[in-house]
Amino acid sequence: MSQPAVGLIGLGLMGNPMGHNLLKAGFPLTVWNRTASRANSLVAAGAKLAASPREVAASSDVLITIVSDPPALEEVLWNSGANSAFPALKKGSIYIDSSTVSPALARKIAAASAQAGIRFLDAPVTGGTWGAEKGELVFMIGGEAATLEAAKPVLNAMGKKLFHLGPNGAGQTIKLAMNSLLAVEVQAFAEALALVQRAGLPGEKLVEVMQSSMARAGILDIKAPSMLSGDFKPSFPLRLMHKDISLALDLANQIGVALPATAAARETYSYVKGSTTEDLDYAGVMRFWKK
Amino acid sequence: MSQPAVGLIGLGLMGNPMGHNLLKAGFPLTVWNRTASRANSLVAAGAKLAASPREVAASSDVLITIVSDPPALEEVLWNSGANSAFPALKKGSIYIDSSTVSPALARKIAAASAQAGIRFLDAPVTGGTWGAEKGELVFMIGGEAATLEAAKPVLNAMGKKLFHLGPNGAGQTIKLAMNSLLAVEVQAFAEALALVQRAGLPGEKLVEVMQSSMARAGILDIKAPSMLSGDFKPSFPLRLMHKDISLALDLANQIGVALPATAAARETYSYVKGSTTEDLDYAGVMRFWKK
Repeated sequence: MSQPAVGLIGLGLMGNPMGHNLLKAGFPLTVWNRTASRANSLVAAGAKLAASPREVAASSDVLITIVSDPPALEEVLWNSGANSAFPALKKGSIYIDSSTVSPALARKIAAASAQAGIRFLDAPVTGGTWGAEKGELVFMIGGEAATLEAAKPVLNAMGKKLFHLGPNGAGQTIKLAMNSLLAVEVQAFAEALALVQRAGLPGEKLVEVMQSSMARAGILDIKAPSMLSGDFKPSFPLRLMHKDISLALDLANQIGVALPATAAARETYSYVKGSTTEDLDYAGVMRFWKK
Repeated sequence: MSQPAVGLIGLGLMGNPMGHNLLKAGFPLTVWNRTASRANSLVAAGAKLAASPREVAASSDVLITIVSDPPALEEVLWNSGANSAFPALKKGSIYIDSSTVSPALARKIAAASAQAGIRFLDAPVTGGTWGAEKGELVFMIGGEAATLEAAKPVLNAMGKKLFHLGPNGAGQTIKLAMNSLLAVEVQAFAEALALVQRAGLPGEKLVEVMQSSMARAGILDIKAPSMLSGDFKPSFPLRLMHKDISLALDLANQIGVALPATAAARETYSYVKGSTTEDLDYAGVMRFWKK
């Protein structure tokens, strides 16, 4: 059997390496990105560049979107007039959204998909650009088990773990909880570091003791060097983490769950986001305590 | 050379196993505890039970205190009238406080010690009862390098790592930062878990994904089972963690450092502390979201 035709919309830090892994796995690939030049390396590697989201959707057995936020997703799906992707999806095709958006939007897409005879998975990812490049992403998946089964060959080309978490929306719910957890872990370390440094001690001492203690955490080992040096070149940009925390707080608000520390952390991420035009990694929340 | 006589005041979850390790290492040991029956197993193992803090101090070349909070420490040192320990300390002796107290109290003791010709270290610990039993505590130490050098044989009987962090007060500063970090890490996980569960998904799913992601953290692996099951038998009691967070926030307030997430987390620990008479582990902060 020939490989299904795959479409990919969104060629940013994550989408680009995901596309390369799809090509390496032998899938015919059609791509689209708002800034077309981002497609260059994929086109050089054999992908076809489409003229619109609609053209990608129309040519795909499996469509994948991975864009930066809910408005960007609604834009490519529905709000691009005749160029919109969703109305062009083929009956029986599979649509996988790997953007991080609200569970409510995932369920809205699921309802529209059911009506149109399209099989939809919300499947946001974790693992960062490193995981995307190695094909070792972790997919958090909401939707029907049979759809996941059918999508596995495509997902396995990009990821090492596929977690089926529940019905549509479940993938996004767990993803928002995960990213809030990461954001508050980094915030916790930033606050501890700020306390130690303002008390006149070297932050390196805190890191050294932390690494011998139960407070040790993977993300802190990764972020500590930049938080000590002040070099915040983005791996996962603060503006996107800020968006994810905000989506988590929106969800919490809708269902009536108080998240006091997450809410407090969001304010510091907001402060740093609003205080600079630089594109910082989210470890740059440390700038909140800059003298 | 014969072993120095060691005194130990405070025979709780930490002090008790620390005393046993001092005896195993061959140090003559005199002990005191407010509730004298807590000394039984140490006396059976060869320790001498003193009648007062003063009697311990008077007989010690090296005195160690490990009590629950600043008032308890001031009580044994100064506020027990003729039974107070501090005035009885011998000139030239070493005094090590392993309680968690404010850096300001550590510096007050340091100043009094300097006047009296006593060599003082603030040396709070991390590693929990497990670390105390195995003799694998991590000591966070403030004070003079020469004093630490002289105290090493005694400290090494109880710990696997001795971090010299700066002058007196530095040990307590790093300890408060570390415990705040732990408290906010657990809070971060509690909030993520509450969000997922209230959204109708099993918390186990969050744990499963977390353990495959960068949000993985030692303390979360340890605390997740009790936070899922609701069994909060104390390993490190919430009331003591609440005290440590409060000491960290006091320090932050004194030196003018904003710690928004730590402050928000403290409110949830306060809520749980005030809502039950049970002695819960600090993972019991999860009770904040109990229906």
